[in-house]
Amino acid sequence: METPNFIFCATKAAIKGARTEDLLAANTQIILSNTYHLFVQPGAERVAELGGLHKMMNWNGPMFTDSGGYQIFSLGYGSVSQEIKGKRDGRRGNMIHRITEEGATFRSYLNGEKHILTPEKSMDVQKKLGADLVVVLDECTPFHVEKKYTAESMHRSHRWALRSLKAFEQTHDGRQAVYGIIQGGVYSDLRQESCDFVNEHPFFAHAIGGSLGSTKEQMDEIVALTAPKLREDRPIHLLGIGKVRDIFKGVRCGIDTFDCVHPTRLARHGGALVPAHQKALEDLDMSHEHINLRNARFATDLNPIDPSCECATCRTMSRGYLHYLLKAGELLALQALTIHNIFFMNRLLKSIREAIATDKLDEAEEYWVGSK
Amino acid sequence: METPNFIFCATKAAIKGARTEDLLAANTQIILSNTYHLFVQPGAERVAELGGLHKMMNWNGPMFTDSGGYQIFSLGYGSVSQEIKGKRDGRRGNMIHRITEEGATFRSYLNGEKHILTPEKSMDVQKKLGADLVVVLDECTPFHVEKKYTAESMHRSHRWALRSLKAFEQTHDGRQAVYGIIQGGVYSDLRQESCDFVNEHPFFAHAIGGSLGSTKEQMDEIVALTAPKLREDRPIHLLGIGKVRDIFKGVRCGIDTFDCVHPTRLARHGGALVPAHQKALEDLDMSHEHINLRNARFATDLNPIDPSCECATCRTMSRGYLHYLLKAGELLALQALTIHNIFFMNRLLKSIREAIATDKLDEAEEYWVGSK
Repeated sequence: METPNFIFCATKAAIKGARTEDLLAANTQIILSNTYHLFVQPGAERVAELGGLHKMMNWNGPMFTDSGGYQIFSLGYGSVSQEIKGKRDGRRGNMIHRITEEGATFRSYLNGEKHILTPEKSMDVQKKLGADLVVVLDECTPFHVEKKYTAESMHRSHRWALRSLKAFEQTHDGRQAVYGIIQGGVYSDLRQESCDFVNEHPFFAHAIGGSLGSTKEQMDEIVALTAPKLREDRPIHLLGIGKVRDIFKGVRCGIDTFDCVHPTRLARHGGALVPAHQKALEDLDMSHEHINLRNARFATDLNPIDPSCECATCRTMSRGYLHYLLKAGELLALQALTIHNIFFMNRLLKSIREAIATDKLDEAEEYWVGSK
Repeated sequence: METPNFIFCATKAAIKGARTEDLLAANTQIILSNTYHLFVQPGAERVAELGGLHKMMNWNGPMFTDSGGYQIFSLGYGSVSQEIKGKRDGRRGNMIHRITEEGATFRSYLNGEKHILTPEKSMDVQKKLGADLVVVLDECTPFHVEKKYTAESMHRSHRWALRSLKAFEQTHDGRQAVYGIIQGGVYSDLRQESCDFVNEHPFFAHAIGGSLGSTKEQMDEIVALTAPKLREDRPIHLLGIGKVRDIFKGVRCGIDTFDCVHPTRLARHGGALVPAHQKALEDLDMSHEHINLRNARFATDLNPIDPSCECATCRTMSRGYLHYLLKAGELLALQALTIHNIFFMNRLLKSIREAIATDKLDEAEEYWVGSK
């Protein structure tokens, strides 16, 4: 796969609203699935029985799984939990987790069954899932804790990383590669320590995790101070980040890959990503990176989402038709917008790769994000 | 288009779970949309503003709209109403209708707004929607009424048909063709009278409507006694019928086209259509025409839905993966099963056309439906 690139979230071994052939038609190079979800349902053994993720999904390209940690720790927070479970029914998550040196204990959101995820277990599950790129187990330290806890948590994550690495190496057959994760929250010295840690151990690549602060500016700052501390001979992934402006910021710091549910989730809410350049031409609201097709202004609009886009949706459907489909609650709207947003992200990353090669990143950022 | 053929229901100008390119890839030749739904939302004028159904949906093949009558009259019954509204939340329809010589009065399921659908209005709406094949307004007489009401209703439907025809002819520009409908319920003499009526008036084609009784045997009987009474120089459509066994019965009586939500709705409930021949080979339950992939027996099944099928789903997904996707509530399952069931129906109808040409309809029926 080419870099920089964007990894789409096939959370439960499926992208909501797009089939594998739709992903390919939209120029997708890499996808990920979530270990936590698949661990709970249908279970790693079942995925292995069904031939592993690639075979199940008929996906022959590169694929990534996370460690499962992020979702377990997120379950401490109701609102995130609801997103994770793909539910919006107002029930709050009460799937309490407990962290020990051994690992993280949690209850299944399906049946309340108690599980423990250890570093060894995470690597074993990820091996059974069979993705190409796997990740060590870490604690995703929340934003609101004190520095002392962030440091303790980071050190435990480092110990878990070594156990993950050991477990990985014991069964390594050359078919998977493992990412180390950088923690340290918003603290420069901790980030330095975590970068030193991953740099010194035999990871294939690095992923920047943990809290990136509470504002865009703080995120930019942490990414900018962390990425340059990492070895240049290993790819760098930025976990969970995926707005267009964030990607430009990250790329400038040397980030190779990004992942985020944003483009596909946005689609399910009626949002279609449109380059700032096109929005400016039409005098559309610039406060978001997308247009919301539920907006009445699109009801009779015969233009495609983005006249400069060549995705299957923009080639065949008008904004007016999509507006109507959204209002009518038709699945087709979600499919159409998902395909558009995936195509958009792949087009964006291609444009960034070309801009890097031709030293025109400023122009590209102007086109996609607009003037500062 | 070739006949016999099957018309898929893009009820609200969209097939739930399949895009136009999926329909084409599954060999679809003709689709329909429902006038009632589009009349309520987004309204015929809006559809016209958006270029008409063909342009909106990017569908360049033949297309059919019904008169809107069926749904209005169905609204008298809660359970049917829920299906119509695409809702299954237990609320019962209270969108009372009143029938007068003028037309049918009903309330919008969206906002309670009162509307009257007259024969003239139905033709006007269908003209704006822009399908190739349109239908006169009729009352879809329910099953449980007495013969006297069935006769009165049929006569009113005939008067409405003449008004529909007159309205159609006044604005006819050669781009649409109109179907007359045969009513008469389960009564042979009324069916005869209704056939005589449509035969004598300048319809392009005929559609058999109204109650076909309460059992499969009664339906077979009514179709068998009605179809042969119709002029041979006009196509015959059988409204709302679409089980595989029904299609063989209908074809043997001279029916040219069928429509039914069954294949696509079944898909949304986890049902995949499989030829009887394949089910017999695998000793699968023969009491339905489909297999239910939610069934635990498919959880680790690496076979495609139907090893003899070449649809996009059967080429790429195992029953086990589909079983998991259904259990996990993933949209992808609905998309995959919808595509399979559409492909199945088109394959079935192609097989029937070939069997007719080669005088092997018995063998085809044995393959698709099984032994009696």
